[in-house]
Amino acid sequence: MNRFKLFADPVGGFISIPRGRVLAYVDHPFVQRLRRIRQLGLGFLVFPGAEHSRFQHALGAMALMQQALQTLEEKGTEISPQEREAALLAALLHDLGHGPFSHVLESVLLPGLSHEAITRALFERLAREDEALWLSVEIFIGTYPRRFLHQLVSSQLDMDRLDYLRRDSFYTGVAEGVIGVERIIKTMRVVDEELVIEQKGVYALENYIIARRLMYWQVYLHKTVLAADKLLLALVRRARALASSGEGSVLDGLSPALRFFLEAPFRTLTEETLAHFVQLDDSDVLGAVKCWTQSREPVLRDLALRLLERRLPRTIFLEDPPQEAELEGWRAATARWLRSRALPDDEETISAYIQLDNSRNSAYQLGHEGIWIWYPDGRRVEFSRATDTPNIAAVSQPVIKHYVCLPREVAQEVGLRRAFQAPEEIS
Amino acid sequence: MNRFKLFADPVGGFISIPRGRVLAYVDHPFVQRLRRIRQLGLGFLVFPGAEHSRFQHALGAMALMQQALQTLEEKGTEISPQEREAALLAALLHDLGHGPFSHVLESVLLPGLSHEAITRALFERLAREDEALWLSVEIFIGTYPRRFLHQLVSSQLDMDRLDYLRRDSFYTGVAEGVIGVERIIKTMRVVDEELVIEQKGVYALENYIIARRLMYWQVYLHKTVLAADKLLLALVRRARALASSGEGSVLDGLSPALRFFLEAPFRTLTEETLAHFVQLDDSDVLGAVKCWTQSREPVLRDLALRLLERRLPRTIFLEDPPQEAELEGWRAATARWLRSRALPDDEETISAYIQLDNSRNSAYQLGHEGIWIWYPDGRRVEFSRATDTPNIAAVSQPVIKHYVCLPREVAQEVGLRRAFQAPEEIS
Amino acid sequence: MNRFKLFADPVGGFISIPRGRVLAYVDHPFVQRLRRIRQLGLGFLVFPGAEHSRFQHALGAMALMQQALQTLEEKGTEISPQEREAALLAALLHDLGHGPFSHVLESVLLPGLSHEAITRALFERLAREDEALWLSVEIFIGTYPRRFLHQLVSSQLDMDRLDYLRRDSFYTGVAEGVIGVERIIKTMRVVDEELVIEQKGVYALENYIIARRLMYWQVYLHKTVLAADKLLLALVRRARALASSGEGSVLDGLSPALRFFLEAPFRTLTEETLAHFVQLDDSDVLGAVKCWTQSREPVLRDLALRLLERRLPRTIFLEDPPQEAELEGWRAATARWLRSRALPDDEETISAYIQLDNSRNSAYQLGHEGIWIWYPDGRRVEFSRATDTPNIAAVSQPVIKHYVCLPREVAQEVGLRRAFQAPEEIS
Amino acid sequence: MNRFKLFADPVGGFISIPRGRVLAYVDHPFVQRLRRIRQLGLGFLVFPGAEHSRFQHALGAMALMQQALQTLEEKGTEISPQEREAALLAALLHDLGHGPFSHVLESVLLPGLSHEAITRALFERLAREDEALWLSVEIFIGTYPRRFLHQLVSSQLDMDRLDYLRRDSFYTGVAEGVIGVERIIKTMRVVDEELVIEQKGVYALENYIIARRLMYWQVYLHKTVLAADKLLLALVRRARALASSGEGSVLDGLSPALRFFLEAPFRTLTEETLAHFVQLDDSDVLGAVKCWTQSREPVLRDLALRLLERRLPRTIFLEDPPQEAELEGWRAATARWLRSRALPDDEETISAYIQLDNSRNSAYQLGHEGIWIWYPDGRRVEFSRATDTPNIAAVSQPVIKHYVCLPREVAQEVGLRRAFQAPEEIS
Repeated sequence: MNRFKLFADPVGGFISIPRGRVLAYVDHPFVQRLRRIRQLGLGFLVFPGAEHSRFQHALGAMALMQQALQTLEEKGTEISPQEREAALLAALLHDLGHGPFSHVLESVLLPGLSHEAITRALFERLAREDEALWLSVEIFIGTYPRRFLHQLVSSQLDMDRLDYLRRDSFYTGVAEGVIGVERIIKTMRVVDEELVIEQKGVYALENYIIARRLMYWQVYLHKTVLAADKLLLALVRRARALASSGEGSVLDGLSPALRFFLEAPFRTLTEETLAHFVQLDDSDVLGAVKCWTQSREPVLRDLALRLLERRLPRTIFLEDPPQEAELEGWRAATARWLRSRALPDDEETISAYIQLDNSRNSAYQLGHEGIWIWYPDGRRVEFSRATDTPNIAAVSQPVIKHYVCLPREVAQEVGLRRAFQAPEEIS
Repeated sequence: MNRFKLFADPVGGFISIPRGRVLAYVDHPFVQRLRRIRQLGLGFLVFPGAEHSRFQHALGAMALMQQALQTLEEKGTEISPQEREAALLAALLHDLGHGPFSHVLESVLLPGLSHEAITRALFERLAREDEALWLSVEIFIGTYPRRFLHQLVSSQLDMDRLDYLRRDSFYTGVAEGVIGVERIIKTMRVVDEELVIEQKGVYALENYIIARRLMYWQVYLHKTVLAADKLLLALVRRARALASSGEGSVLDGLSPALRFFLEAPFRTLTEETLAHFVQLDDSDVLGAVKCWTQSREPVLRDLALRLLERRLPRTIFLEDPPQEAELEGWRAATARWLRSRALPDDEETISAYIQLDNSRNSAYQLGHEGIWIWYPDGRRVEFSRATDTPNIAAVSQPVIKHYVCLPREVAQEVGLRRAFQAPEEIS
Repeated sequence: MNRFKLFADPVGGFISIPRGRVLAYVDHPFVQRLRRIRQLGLGFLVFPGAEHSRFQHALGAMALMQQALQTLEEKGTEISPQEREAALLAALLHDLGHGPFSHVLESVLLPGLSHEAITRALFERLAREDEALWLSVEIFIGTYPRRFLHQLVSSQLDMDRLDYLRRDSFYTGVAEGVIGVERIIKTMRVVDEELVIEQKGVYALENYIIARRLMYWQVYLHKTVLAADKLLLALVRRARALASSGEGSVLDGLSPALRFFLEAPFRTLTEETLAHFVQLDDSDVLGAVKCWTQSREPVLRDLALRLLERRLPRTIFLEDPPQEAELEGWRAATARWLRSRALPDDEETISAYIQLDNSRNSAYQLGHEGIWIWYPDGRRVEFSRATDTPNIAAVSQPVIKHYVCLPREVAQEVGLRRAFQAPEEIS
Repeated sequence: MNRFKLFADPVGGFISIPRGRVLAYVDHPFVQRLRRIRQLGLGFLVFPGAEHSRFQHALGAMALMQQALQTLEEKGTEISPQEREAALLAALLHDLGHGPFSHVLESVLLPGLSHEAITRALFERLAREDEALWLSVEIFIGTYPRRFLHQLVSSQLDMDRLDYLRRDSFYTGVAEGVIGVERIIKTMRVVDEELVIEQKGVYALENYIIARRLMYWQVYLHKTVLAADKLLLALVRRARALASSGEGSVLDGLSPALRFFLEAPFRTLTEETLAHFVQLDDSDVLGAVKCWTQSREPVLRDLALRLLERRLPRTIFLEDPPQEAELEGWRAATARWLRSRALPDDEETISAYIQLDNSRNSAYQLGHEGIWIWYPDGRRVEFSRATDTPNIAAVSQPVIKHYVCLPREVAQEVGLRRAFQAPEEIS
């Protein structure tokens, strides 16, 4: 038997994992669950190739950690076998707490429970059965004294971000997200137990920051992805509200794990919550949507059919948040449109069909938690203040985009024209 | 509004679809359903990147049809706008009848109903509502007099195969499946309404045939994929048997569509069958597997957990089919192993844990239905008889590989060692 | 015979050229000459893959022009067959006037003759024999009334730049230069005969501008490329000076074309000059360098050997231009080092070994000659003033980097440490 | 200073070379010379991207050796630091003896001196100055007892072939040559000091053998490449004959190194020969061709112009070698054509314009020097006799293709039609 198990990764080539503890965790049900959760949630409705799972991202982040640790060792940083294994495991397990469509559903399905909190809880649960994992937990949460190990797992230049950018740009086919992962890693270095980038890496770093910015606007916050997200959100919110109001049939046919989270308004991080959480994946949500397409409740049915058949609302970006009167006009038009389709026109229903929100993103956070550049003379400078990086400060300003999602017919009636569109699956 | 809708395809670049009938069918629920069916079934358990859907394959086949028609027109073949649209639709809709994990489940979920038959039925159902689609149906089933149009949709060199080979090798990361799609299409030509390949394309064609052969053994019939397939098959077969024997609880929590197919031993191709079929996708099956992990029936529960947590049987390739006595020995060992795990050891259960089968594949079918090479002097020669193709006849012989799937512990006990292994996720 | 000739381009896939006038110009000796001129001059000394010729760039620019014209026609812009052919030829021929290592040698080999001037002269010479080419000349120089055709050939978003960026990043392996060429072209549009980019293309455009910026600093102005350039410049300058001072043997063994340009201090754009120019390619210069390695003149010999064997000077980037005294110190150290190597230490020789210069680049030029964004409501806005492009104005400021190239031993002696280095072939 | 020097290789990613002896040899003038020799000779006249040098191939072969040695060590084969360095150097230096266009010119420029013999001579010359290099020489020539090290450098599965296949298919854009280098290397193993491939690698191996076969016919022996080769051969043969007959002016303007080899009919492997050889590169030959375009000898001038301006002969593949009478007819037609162009029509000149030859290739050599497959039970089987490799024996038969190269006009007159053409730059 070979000493290594190989995984063929279309993004980064073969991933080789030595048989032993790391491989055992790859096989753990908590990690295998990630095979059933898409990395980009509903993004596949806009980018047909973006069907990749969080599982392959977890493997990819671990593989990048292997490369980073090797580079650092070649430059003289000593890393013990225990630290190495713990760091690999921290990279592998860093996303355990993501649920299905988590960027969308976290607030409605798991109110009060962030995916970071769940990740930590699952991590600790594993550590209670495997003493050696505590080192990994310490690296993950940042209490281990060697800071660079935490920074490789969680910072503005961690293996998570490096892998998801290259992976998401690969599967979406968005050239603007291509980054020089290998080049960035080759310029890493440890000084005073902190992770730094050698000066010669500044341009690869600039490209990485800009690529991240562009991926946000072109993929993660793509107008049609936002529309799909809002539709799913309205759907689950509706189901929860119906369940709360005693309309139990809305939970019929749903998986036990999903029922658990929809039945109660609020769950705390108990063992029971975790036990249900680790049963949840995309198929629970998709299964529920399919159930709801046959619901007697007309709004739930309508929303479910729209999502399943990809008849999505239109997203309109707005230069400013609308005036109250303007918004009222849109809601009134939505109400008329609902009535014309024999649907209820109460406030709650209207809010399911027309949603106002904003996206915000800043590509880089200045300051102490920024990325630090190391010069051959020993100086360290925060990235935005390095030589020849005029645009980094510019992109560190948060950009806020207001938008409204609403039915196409309503948009036309009220004369809302899209101010912005991106090049995939434009409608 | 632009006249075209663009889809970003990571495999072949942008796909551009003019607004109109073709785009309307992309948006049809029958086609949107393919977004929820993985092209390679359980292949993602072995190749982490192989999570792509039949939807993107359908788009890809249609895009290759665009290229093929353009090449043929540039070489003087006249194609009417109606023929063009019909051919594009035939490529887009050619896989409508695939169910979830269809290569695995067709026999047990839809006994007597091939995916080709269902595709045709769905195609005709659409045509009954859209007169213009009949031309597409004729091209699809081969009754349209211009043979090359059918050959582009269904032959040994159709857009289906060209797209799935390039797409599957892309997502699995298997370099052995890389083919020169663009080069092959550029050498297509129509002579006497038949599709031929110009002589200068023979090497691209040889590569295509060999790549297909290698993809079969390395991916589609990979030993661990076979093991997962057999496990899923045993699981669904068990559920169906339990349902038949009155154990109705096995259907609790399943989607209505899946229940429909599991409740009755046999379904004919009625409107009702079709109506349920178009509701089925991967999430129904995955949802059922998750349900069954909590079943009271111990075998169903055990099989379901093994699949969900990816604890797969071992596949052993055998030089010859085993002797009766040998097989009995393996079954007896399996029975002992079942008893040791407090599971029943009846014949049916044993057959769920140890399965004997064979894979067969021939890379190319000689004869009239083969691929024809066209020489500048006007001659046409069947590919295996062309100049300098010594290995094509060799690979047209069917290769048969016998194998057994069984629990790892049993394999070890009876001394069965793997005679073969492939390089991904070796265990 | 096929109606098209295919070229296999590793960068952009097959290039298909219809037989006729465009193909005839591909075969013209002026264009074939470009096969013998490397696109990146001495860049291959730093980036081992960067050995690609200007010929493939010319083909690539023409292929992008095909795509751009097709997109514009699909959006309703009418383009006559004559305009189409003329635009393709303008893209194909746009670099005719580049000589060997032209970014380096233009000033010393062809003082007073820019490559733009020579391109135009060659263009016109061709047009005098082919009446139809005048339309192409008009498009090239910008006198044709339909502005967008000129902008596709020569502007901040022309086919030249799009092709060289994607091609140079491909061959250097610099991921930071990857751009979404296809996406950018798909968002082109013509309004009032001007080329504009639809609003949905702003992010692809931002990536293009930043990629261009990064390619300048990482590739075109890479410190080791600068060092090689300076060495070649010193070498040719030395040869010319020796020739001027009557040391005719320095021209022995050189090609007639190169002798022509080295013999006289200054050439005007006569027929004779052009006739010699079109004989010049990389092999003339490399051949001369090899000759000079056997020269009796010790400095010429030393410089030639250093270039041939890739023993390059060191480039040091400086925060500011050096003070006079500081520079004098460096020159004095260089003089000592020359004496220690038994080489002359006169002013001219010192200047051959230590060269002070600066690089400057701005990624984007604001203003009327900028790139214009088109909004669905008909407005046009200059790119840096579009919504959400905070960093474009930042990168339009010229960046200036002062540097000195000098022998490594001298750099060490005077304590000059590199303040900057880039990740290829670091020494 | 970093401990490694990085080279950005567009084909295989970054190549990392530790500072020390290996890097010192990369910088050696013998290796730097390879930067000026194209890997595929005149292939760039057919495949515009195929301009890559032997230098990057040498680096690539060394990088694959790094990977192979690492895999073997991970599987338990002990390799000493001396052996490792010697093997890396053997891979780096394995092609030192290639001259410009060596597959074409070896017979006429260096009659009696194979590139293998020159490589060995240069290797030994280096070893005489660097004692430690003798281990590398032993590995290279096969006298070192550990056979697998030699096999990695020179066998049917050596790093040379693995690198040139992937590199040449990358730069030509020929998908049929894509191989799974990483996969093949991962299945290497050492048994009894012999290199074997584990059974799971058979399909990657089959793909490699077929890819090599296809690259021969599609690239290395492409009809237009053959035509260019024959033209260059006729040209140099003509020049040598003229020189021999006292027409010394034919050597005017040529580089000293090239003159050395053209002046004498035969050179033995002396120090003087080597000293001239290491001065030779592509620029000497291209420079000579350019000189000859201005020769007074009309045939030399005509041939030189044809090559420089890419007006190549036509290659016609023949089913059998022509009958004597047929050949005489072609030669007579060639003579008439020469007279019509006011060129001499003597036998020697005719032979310069019409050349008969054959290409032969077998994709794999059976027998003891074949590739050996290793089974988990310890058996070793020669590849063509392994399970499921029906086509390997078929492609091990040599394929012979007869062809004639002659002027296009003559081909048309005598009614010779191309029986075969390949898809690039078809004319």
